[in-house]
Amino acid sequence: MAHVVQKYGGSSVASADHIKRVARRVAARHTAGDQVVVVVSAMGDTTDELYALAEQMTSNPHPRELDVLLSTGETITSTLLSMALHELGVDAVSLSGAQAGIRTTAVFGRARISGIHTDRMEAELAQGRVVIVAGFQGVSEDLDVTTFGRGGSDTTAVALAAALKADTCEIYTDVAGIYTADPRICPNARPLRDIGYEEMLELATTGARVMHARAVEVGELYDVAIRVASSFDESAPGTLIHRETTMEQGNKVRGIAHQDHTAKVTVRGVPDRPGIAALLFEPLADAGVSVDTIVQNASVEKLTDMTFTVSPGDLTEALRVVEAVKAELGAAQVVSEPDLGTVSVVGTGMASAPGFAARMFKTLHEASINIDMISTSDIRITCVIASAQVGDAVRALHDAFELDRQD
Amino acid sequence: MAHVVQKYGGSSVASADHIKRVARRVAARHTAGDQVVVVVSAMGDTTDELYALAEQMTSNPHPRELDVLLSTGETITSTLLSMALHELGVDAVSLSGAQAGIRTTAVFGRARISGIHTDRMEAELAQGRVVIVAGFQGVSEDLDVTTFGRGGSDTTAVALAAALKADTCEIYTDVAGIYTADPRICPNARPLRDIGYEEMLELATTGARVMHARAVEVGELYDVAIRVASSFDESAPGTLIHRETTMEQGNKVRGIAHQDHTAKVTVRGVPDRPGIAALLFEPLADAGVSVDTIVQNASVEKLTDMTFTVSPGDLTEALRVVEAVKAELGAAQVVSEPDLGTVSVVGTGMASAPGFAARMFKTLHEASINIDMISTSDIRITCVIASAQVGDAVRALHDAFELDRQD
Repeated sequence: MAHVVQKYGGSSVASADHIKRVARRVAARHTAGDQVVVVVSAMGDTTDELYALAEQMTSNPHPRELDVLLSTGETITSTLLSMALHELGVDAVSLSGAQAGIRTTAVFGRARISGIHTDRMEAELAQGRVVIVAGFQGVSEDLDVTTFGRGGSDTTAVALAAALKADTCEIYTDVAGIYTADPRICPNARPLRDIGYEEMLELATTGARVMHARAVEVGELYDVAIRVASSFDESAPGTLIHRETTMEQGNKVRGIAHQDHTAKVTVRGVPDRPGIAALLFEPLADAGVSVDTIVQNASVEKLTDMTFTVSPGDLTEALRVVEAVKAELGAAQVVSEPDLGTVSVVGTGMASAPGFAARMFKTLHEASINIDMISTSDIRITCVIASAQVGDAVRALHDAFELDRQD
Repeated sequence: MAHVVQKYGGSSVASADHIKRVARRVAARHTAGDQVVVVVSAMGDTTDELYALAEQMTSNPHPRELDVLLSTGETITSTLLSMALHELGVDAVSLSGAQAGIRTTAVFGRARISGIHTDRMEAELAQGRVVIVAGFQGVSEDLDVTTFGRGGSDTTAVALAAALKADTCEIYTDVAGIYTADPRICPNARPLRDIGYEEMLELATTGARVMHARAVEVGELYDVAIRVASSFDESAPGTLIHRETTMEQGNKVRGIAHQDHTAKVTVRGVPDRPGIAALLFEPLADAGVSVDTIVQNASVEKLTDMTFTVSPGDLTEALRVVEAVKAELGAAQVVSEPDLGTVSVVGTGMASAPGFAARMFKTLHEASINIDMISTSDIRITCVIASAQVGDAVRALHDAFELDRQD
């Protein structure tokens, strides 16, 4: 008997018929003797519809109230799946995040899990029931409903798998796993058989949005092996995200990630003295502007240029903040560039194998793609390029690193 | 400073704009210095839509799951109203039935309130907040969500008013109060200034569905004065449901109630011996058939006829049950009649003033309406008549008892 946590995303439970299909899959596992906990997202566009309702009330919904509102989407799915399982003769019980014992911080909209009290879930499993948990939600110490932000149901699933010491955590979605690149823009892209947590994190945060980054972090922390697979194609094995066990098996490119849209702000001619970075980035953080890549050039005659990227939606606010501190920085000029994108090559061991960077730059050059900025980590090289050239760049790099070949 | 519980029904919160209007009304009361608790129903047809979702899963939804599903409708409204109040600068907090401390029996779909722990509500009120409670729901001792059945938000409001010792309980709906008859079929009908609990109960259970009977019972038990008024017309005072204070002020007809559809079952030629009523009605109750009026004729030569009415939807099941016990009863024949309705004259002191019954029967006779069955209580006379004649009967009785005159 295996202990399994399964998570079905919004597209897998988009309609009554979809939910019935999920029920049949869950019932089959239960009948085979497995203990099954199912985490569900809201149906299809429900979360967007609930957001739209809130926006009809106010442009600035109260965060506590918004969390209660959004949490109803997952709750509805959980009850419907339970009904469908009962219809198949399988005993099941739906639990809210609160009932499932998921305690969180009181930071509405992006609460973090502080602990999981598994008593109720274990009691229900011991009764032979399938336990269905509404994803994306928990409860604060004050018993207020909290949510985890978009994609939070992945986090629910991995955290439950950790707390329940489940044998496997299965994330079912509308794609066949983690691809070597986005198949919508790269026809040769193929699903990976497996991938390490760190690589997955780089892919998740730089464009491959199949899996929520926080969920991967929880998986890494508690060593939960996560299988990402299609809920529509049962024959495809999907991708296993786990701790790499083969020493040095990495050391190669695993995937190409991209972001279609980013924006760049450059602060020119800043006198190079200690503390200038804090002077610039603290007010940005205070204003809620999330900064991606930061590059500071070596200074020339005690003057330096500082460049950073933000999401295009944050550009106006970022410029407002930078203009406000420009005088204090002693900067000569602030310039911005809105129509950029990024392309990243991801794989373990890149830092120790400089040939990867050279091949990436050469490939982009041969495709007549100009590199605007470069940033790197141990397992990633990212180039900021023109937004319009992102698709060409992904395809060229996928070919250059021969990612269409089976690993 | 008054302590007020207000309840807004589904039609009063049917859209974002409706909810904003409610928010302005609540804000005005709060700004005037009152402590306000607001109970809300689900928006418009939300409950029906949630039912429809459940029915797509199964023809027989699991009661526990159905309750969780249906409860989301009221929860959604509560969060939206809270957001709208925040937008108006009024501090507010939405509470689920569980958070509001509403403990119930574990009878899903028709739970009864066992007690209300008011600590959280009182703490929020003490903070100067408007408290918004999702109606129609509570929580069992096992912390499972329960619902009270259709119209249950009225019960929530009156029970909260009792538990919080509120000065007034205001039920806002889409009509101007309790009418002397249904204004859709009787153009002369007008709203009553006030009415006693018992009279209201008779009206509620025999056709005037403005106010949920259970809510009236709770109001009577805890002596909560309930004002029923229109949420659309602030100038109309509505109807006050309260303990009648003027001795003998009753003793007159207050309203005409009706049911468009009822069905009748007659069991003929039953040997008249002790226990036959139980033999007939126990299996009906076990089968979930709700019986309205019961009439047993005086026996002729030790044989009697027993007649009862049920809702037309229950007729098939009722006949199945009766046929099953027919032999045991020793009954000669079972006949049924589906196309009936009822008309009732309601008012205190009828039992001590037999002239009312005579006038009712004479009025119906003059309107060529045949009376099929009669049943009476202290404050009500009900005639079962042909369904097609219900409208004529209501109008004729409204005229005969001069209910268009101001009381």
